[in-house]
Amino acid sequence: MRAARYHGPSDIRLDTIPEPTPTATQVLVAIEWGGICGSDLHEYIQGPVVIPTASHPHALTGESLPVVLCHEFCGRVAALPESSSDGEVKGAGGVVLRVGMKVMVDPRQNCQACTSCCEMKSSNICPKWGFLGLTGGGGGFAERCAVRADMCYPLPESVDLADAALIEPLAVGRRALTQSGVLGGEWREKAVLVLGGGPIGVAVVWNLKAFGAERVFLSEPTALRQRQCRGLVERVFDPRTERVAEECRELTGGEGVDVVIDCAGVGPAMRDGMDALRRKGTYVNVAGWETPFQLPMQYFMMKELVVRCTLAYDDADFTDTVADFIAGKYKGAEKMVTSRIAIEDIKEKGFEQLVKNKDAHIKILATPKRELLE
Amino acid sequence: MRAARYHGPSDIRLDTIPEPTPTATQVLVAIEWGGICGSDLHEYIQGPVVIPTASHPHALTGESLPVVLCHEFCGRVAALPESSSDGEVKGAGGVVLRVGMKVMVDPRQNCQACTSCCEMKSSNICPKWGFLGLTGGGGGFAERCAVRADMCYPLPESVDLADAALIEPLAVGRRALTQSGVLGGEWREKAVLVLGGGPIGVAVVWNLKAFGAERVFLSEPTALRQRQCRGLVERVFDPRTERVAEECRELTGGEGVDVVIDCAGVGPAMRDGMDALRRKGTYVNVAGWETPFQLPMQYFMMKELVVRCTLAYDDADFTDTVADFIAGKYKGAEKMVTSRIAIEDIKEKGFEQLVKNKDAHIKILATPKRELLE
Repeated sequence: MRAARYHGPSDIRLDTIPEPTPTATQVLVAIEWGGICGSDLHEYIQGPVVIPTASHPHALTGESLPVVLCHEFCGRVAALPESSSDGEVKGAGGVVLRVGMKVMVDPRQNCQACTSCCEMKSSNICPKWGFLGLTGGGGGFAERCAVRADMCYPLPESVDLADAALIEPLAVGRRALTQSGVLGGEWREKAVLVLGGGPIGVAVVWNLKAFGAERVFLSEPTALRQRQCRGLVERVFDPRTERVAEECRELTGGEGVDVVIDCAGVGPAMRDGMDALRRKGTYVNVAGWETPFQLPMQYFMMKELVVRCTLAYDDADFTDTVADFIAGKYKGAEKMVTSRIAIEDIKEKGFEQLVKNKDAHIKILATPKRELLE
Repeated sequence: MRAARYHGPSDIRLDTIPEPTPTATQVLVAIEWGGICGSDLHEYIQGPVVIPTASHPHALTGESLPVVLCHEFCGRVAALPESSSDGEVKGAGGVVLRVGMKVMVDPRQNCQACTSCCEMKSSNICPKWGFLGLTGGGGGFAERCAVRADMCYPLPESVDLADAALIEPLAVGRRALTQSGVLGGEWREKAVLVLGGGPIGVAVVWNLKAFGAERVFLSEPTALRQRQCRGLVERVFDPRTERVAEECRELTGGEGVDVVIDCAGVGPAMRDGMDALRRKGTYVNVAGWETPFQLPMQYFMMKELVVRCTLAYDDADFTDTVADFIAGKYKGAEKMVTSRIAIEDIKEKGFEQLVKNKDAHIKILATPKRELLE
């Protein structure tokens, strides 16, 4: 079958690889849509970062590059494992999977045996964590992928698979909120500054809406991303021309915002965010950083701030994001998709566009089924 | 009267200055003992940091250098304000102050009008915060100081003023615990790594004992400081010869410690501490840093750690520390005092010793009363 594989930085090739065969606990998923993530872009520009190399194969998959790319993907169940000819294979939530069913894939790999996976219910921080589409086991920029059945989330026919791959970044955005220390009902009272209006920033904004937050500000320098969020938040700041922290204080009676969520991962945005926080406020970092993560002490210490970090999402975040997606709570988030392409074009019309024409894009989705582009 | 004043880095002089006169809300304290703090040492080596200069006088006191040094001090009430000839001046906790009473001074200055001071009960992070002994208003390396009456904590005659100045660093150590997110009764279950066995590290260790923590480890490179803490904690590590993080994991069934308290403020110690933390553990920084505070992402993100910072202490921390000191819960902490000197000798036998002969000292106390040294 055809699959776009990562061979090294700037080196993604459309390869023909063997058809995957599901094990007794897996199903075969025929992929419809997959998204390019910021972490894929990190791999493309300065990788391999998370992608394993021959000298350090992955702890769970034993694989190393080349690996199939894409961990944000959805499709339909194409085949059940041979050992279950009675058709009783259970997906996420214990739902019996059938051939033809629409499913969203939770791409995480974890050992299911350590303290994080079992006692802490935080399989995202399993010491052996990996992702389909990054650490082996196949991925979404391919015709098919064998996926752990319990990681397949059934979607009703009414859900459009053309948008469902967004569930993955939406779950990343959701975790910033569930790990912030702010409890569900408290969001209504909070003033929140989101740094960065890329896919994760937008995902955070949509989750803040879903959680009932009424005072959300966004700092984002590029025009397209500013425009996309303008109707969603109370204020969009341009950090190149506006004094973000001062504006935030003015909008909050002089005190500053309660929570900052960093989806930018750059020093100047962090300084704005730390400055904008009220005393004893919370800073949640979701971003990957290419430069050192260095806290300015005049804010961190003098305001006794709390700084947290999140990595992907856990089972509960993903389950709840799927449910809210089905319930229509993220309706409109699909506007972040700025281009739809075939996996054959993933390098030129996908990664290269995100490098060279960054300001014109938010999320690019790709499909192995050319007919879906017509 | 005689007072040791800071004129600039390496420039501390014994000056003769006017006798302070208490305002209607102050009392005059005749000082017996005061300690040199790490922040005084920062000022001595690379200041002025917190000490205000002529171009930026302090927001509350309006003063700038030269200022009287020392914010860790105790003494006896020497005079009440003239306006209260009936003797009804109330100290901390509403206790009526009388001439001759032993008192420990909470040296903090704050505006008593902002959100931090009033609603949040966190006067330590008042935007206008200052300290007697740093930002004007007098200080402890002098014969007398006029002090806000409500900041004077009466001590029973049974408390030895020779040790009572330690209440201030003990309150700093206490705040690391009260701000950690761990609740009082939970300390018994927690494994804690303290980085640095200087005065604040020792103060943290004593508070951990007072809070019932049973599994405390300390990482400290110098022999004297290692020795002082050996009987107080389960294990003392030498970070120059031992692999601190691995040892911590071995002592905690492979998981790592629950809480790290950073009283060291140097990069290598932070890396050890972040590595030693269990997943979702908490890192509390109490230390002042001379280098950037830079979090290693492989620990911060991959373990979803929580990072907090504390500044001094608030009213509750100080009140509780005084009560526990009177109750004898810190009995033995006075061993951290490695030298007692006269304020005349504060530069040569105090600051210079802490610079040149660092490994031979933990806490140095000074007195304006020569007779107390005999």
